[in-house]
Amino acid sequence: MSGFPEWLPDGRVVEQHVLDSLRRTFELHGFAGIETRAVEPLSQLERKGETSKEVYVLRRLQDERAEPDASGTEDGLGLHFDLTVPFARYVLENAGQLAFPFKRYQIQKVWRGERPQDGRFREFTQADIDVVGADTLPFHFEAELPLVMAEALAALPIPPVLISVNNRKVAQGFYEAIGLADVEAALRVIDKLDKIGSDAVVESLQTEAGATADQARAALELAAIKGDDPSVADRVRALGARSELLDEGLDELVRLLEAAQQASPGTVVADMSIARGLDYYTGTVYETTLVGHENLGSICSGGRYDSLASDGKRTYPGVGLSIGVSRLLTRVLGRGLATASRPVPTAVLVAVADEADRASSDRVARSLRARGIPTDVAPTAAKFGKQIRYADRRGIPFVWFPGEHPAGEVKDIRSGDQAPADAETWQPPAADLWPRVLGQDEPR
Amino acid sequence: MSGFPEWLPDGRVVEQHVLDSLRRTFELHGFAGIETRAVEPLSQLERKGETSKEVYVLRRLQDERAEPDASGTEDGLGLHFDLTVPFARYVLENAGQLAFPFKRYQIQKVWRGERPQDGRFREFTQADIDVVGADTLPFHFEAELPLVMAEALAALPIPPVLISVNNRKVAQGFYEAIGLADVEAALRVIDKLDKIGSDAVVESLQTEAGATADQARAALELAAIKGDDPSVADRVRALGARSELLDEGLDELVRLLEAAQQASPGTVVADMSIARGLDYYTGTVYETTLVGHENLGSICSGGRYDSLASDGKRTYPGVGLSIGVSRLLTRVLGRGLATASRPVPTAVLVAVADEADRASSDRVARSLRARGIPTDVAPTAAKFGKQIRYADRRGIPFVWFPGEHPAGEVKDIRSGDQAPADAETWQPPAADLWPRVLGQDEPR
Repeated sequence: MSGFPEWLPDGRVVEQHVLDSLRRTFELHGFAGIETRAVEPLSQLERKGETSKEVYVLRRLQDERAEPDASGTEDGLGLHFDLTVPFARYVLENAGQLAFPFKRYQIQKVWRGERPQDGRFREFTQADIDVVGADTLPFHFEAELPLVMAEALAALPIPPVLISVNNRKVAQGFYEAIGLADVEAALRVIDKLDKIGSDAVVESLQTEAGATADQARAALELAAIKGDDPSVADRVRALGARSELLDEGLDELVRLLEAAQQASPGTVVADMSIARGLDYYTGTVYETTLVGHENLGSICSGGRYDSLASDGKRTYPGVGLSIGVSRLLTRVLGRGLATASRPVPTAVLVAVADEADRASSDRVARSLRARGIPTDVAPTAAKFGKQIRYADRRGIPFVWFPGEHPAGEVKDIRSGDQAPADAETWQPPAADLWPRVLGQDEPR
Repeated sequence: MSGFPEWLPDGRVVEQHVLDSLRRTFELHGFAGIETRAVEPLSQLERKGETSKEVYVLRRLQDERAEPDASGTEDGLGLHFDLTVPFARYVLENAGQLAFPFKRYQIQKVWRGERPQDGRFREFTQADIDVVGADTLPFHFEAELPLVMAEALAALPIPPVLISVNNRKVAQGFYEAIGLADVEAALRVIDKLDKIGSDAVVESLQTEAGATADQARAALELAAIKGDDPSVADRVRALGARSELLDEGLDELVRLLEAAQQASPGTVVADMSIARGLDYYTGTVYETTLVGHENLGSICSGGRYDSLASDGKRTYPGVGLSIGVSRLLTRVLGRGLATASRPVPTAVLVAVADEADRASSDRVARSLRARGIPTDVAPTAAKFGKQIRYADRRGIPFVWFPGEHPAGEVKDIRSGDQAPADAETWQPPAADLWPRVLGQDEPR
C-alpha cells in the first residue's frame, strides 16, 4: 500500500532514536509536549480555506452499510492533515488553562487523502515546535526557534542542514516601495524562479502580477540576494527601494542572522528567493534542506503568523516550524545514512540447558533486568549452538549460560570470548547495553 | 467532542511517563518496538468476522465532493480498531525478514466508530505485547507474558492490579467431558454470571446451551472456582469430570500459577468464571483489574491464539496482552491517582535584565542545556517580580539571574533561597531536573 510508510524492527529503532532525540532537544529548550486527537471537525479543517490539502473524511462503517447513498458523515469528522490546525483549536479550547507565551512541541502522525497513484505520503509523522503568545509575541522567538531546530537536527544521525530564511516584511515592503501592488501574485511568480528561470520570471511578473519591466527586474534582483551575514541587508538597500516595512523586515533579518552566527555558524542563510509560505506567514519564514540531498525538498519549514487563532477577545500570534520526520527517515533508511546496531533491545540471551530447568534461566534474566539490562531467555532448550544462532540472527551480543545462581558464564558471540560472571553484578559494556544508531561512517 | 480524550500539558506529562515506563519494561524483556500504519484495507479489518467492532471508513474529501452519492471508498480503507489485526498483517507481510519467535510491543492509537452519544472512546491508545512463533509456540510464553504485564503495571503510579486467568482447554475439556456439546453457547451464558446470577445461569444453560439440569449445575460449580495456587486444579478435578483436554488445560493453569507465585506473588489468580475471550482464544486468557477500581473493567486483556495469521504455508500461533492506556489514564487523571510535579520540562528560567542584553541570558541557557538541564529564557525583560511569576505559574523551580558569565545567582523560588552559582557547573537537585510523576500519597 503506497503512501503509508512502515518499518521493519531495525528501521523502527532508527525512527525511535530520531523521535527520542527530537523530544529531548525540544524539552531542553522548555517546550511542553502535547498530543491532540487525530480527528477534527471538517469545519475546523477547512477553516483556513486550506483547500489545497487533501482531507480524509471519516464515516462509520455501520452508517455506510445502512445508508450507502447518504453523503457526508454523521458528524463531519476528518483526519488532521497537519499539527497546526489542531494546535490552534487546542489553544482556543484551553486558553484559560495555558500560560502564555506557550511553548509546545507535538510529534504525531498526520494524514492526507492523496490519490494512491500520486506516490505521495498519505500517512506521515511530523515534529512541530511552536510558541504562541496572547495578543503579542516578541520578535526574538523568530530568531530562536530555527536555532532550536538546528540543534535538534544536528543531534540526529543525518548530514548537516541548511536553514534558509526570508521575511514577508522584506518582500512586501520592497514590492510596495517600488509600486508593485499585487504582492501575492508576485510571490507566486518568484516561487517558480528555480523551475522557469529569470527571463520567464520577468515576463510572468509583468503578465501575471501587473509589474512594469523595471519593477520585474527589481523584484528579480531582490530574489537573487542570499547570504549568511548582515551585509545581506546592505545589498537589499543598495537596490534603492525604501519603506518602513522594508526597514523593519531587514532589521529582523539581521537580528536573526546575528543570533544564528553566534549559536550555530553556517547553519542559517537569508535567501530572498524563498517565496513559498510568504503568502500566509506575516514575518520570518523558514525552509530547511539536507546538505547533499537538496532534491528531497524542505525537511523543516514554518514561519511567523500574527494570528494562529482568535476567539474574538484575544488573538494568538505565533511562530513555529515542522519537521517532516517520515520524509527525512525515508531518505535516511533508504540510503543507509543511519542504521541500528541491532533490531531488538536485547543485550543478553540467557540460554536454557533443559526445559525442566527454565526457572534457573528466568532467575538470571530477572537479576539482569533488575539492573536495567535488556534480557531475553531462549525460547526452547535446543542445542546451545542453535541458541547461539538465535542470538546471532537478532544481533544480541551476549549469551549467558547459567550455573549455580548467580554464577554463570557469559559469551560475547562476536569475539567468542567466554568468561565466568555473576548475574548480580555483571555489566555489558555501555555501548552494548541498548541498540545504538550509527551514522554512515561510524564503526559498528 | 466526546470520545476523543485529550490532555492539558500536565496530564500529558503523566501520559508520557506511563508510555515511557511501559516501553522500558517491554524492552527490558526483549520485545522489539514496531509501529504499523493507522490504516488498513477494509477487507483486512473484516477478515476475522469482527462485525462487533465499529470501524471508521476513510473517504477522500475531494471524491466525496465530486461524487457525493458514491458509496464506499475508492480503495476501501479504514482505521484500525486494535493492534492485533495490523500486527497479523505485518507478520505475514514481513515473515521472510522477521526472526521467530518474534516478540514485539506496539503502543499506538486505535479508533472505533462508536456513535457519539454512546459515551465510549472513539480514539484511544493501546499498549500491546505479543510473541508469535512460526508453526509452533511453546506454552511457557503463556506464563511469561502476564508477568511482563504485571511488572509493567507495577512500575506505573497506579494501584496494584489483579490478573485473572482462565484456559479455554479447561472449559472446553470440562464441558465436553460432561457432555455439554455447545461450548460457545455455554460460555456466552457463563459470561453473564455476574449480571444475571446463578439461578438464571442454570436456567439459561438449559434453554440456550442445551444443557441438562445436572450439566448446568456442574458448569456453574466450575465457574465458582477461583484461587491463586495449584489447589485450583484439584478443586476442578474434584468435580469429577475427566478428559485429556481438561488435564492439559489444568496442567497449563498450574504451571502459570507456579511461575506467577515465584515472580509476582498475589498478582495472578485463576478464575473459572472468566468466559469473555474464550470463544476466540485457544489457551490461556487474561483479564486485569485495578484493585479498588474494579468498576473500570479490564485494563489489560488478551490470550493465546493458535493462529494469529496464516499464509497457506505457515501458521503463526501467538500469545499477547493489550493495555487500555487511555482507559487507565482517564481514571488516573480523573481521580488524581497520579499528578505531574510541573506541566513544563523546564527546571530553570533564566531572567532577562534588559532586552539589549538578552544574549547574556541566552548564553547562560546554552551552558545549562549543554549539561542536560532543561532551561527557558524569560520572554521579556519585565520586572524581575513578573519574571518570577512566569516561572511560578509554570512550576519552574529555579530562576537564574545572569552576572558576569558564567557567574550568576540562582533562586529556588519555592524556598526563596538565592545563592551565587556558576552556569558551567551548577546542577539542580536530581529530583528537580525533570518533571516527576507522583502517586497519590507521594510528597511533591
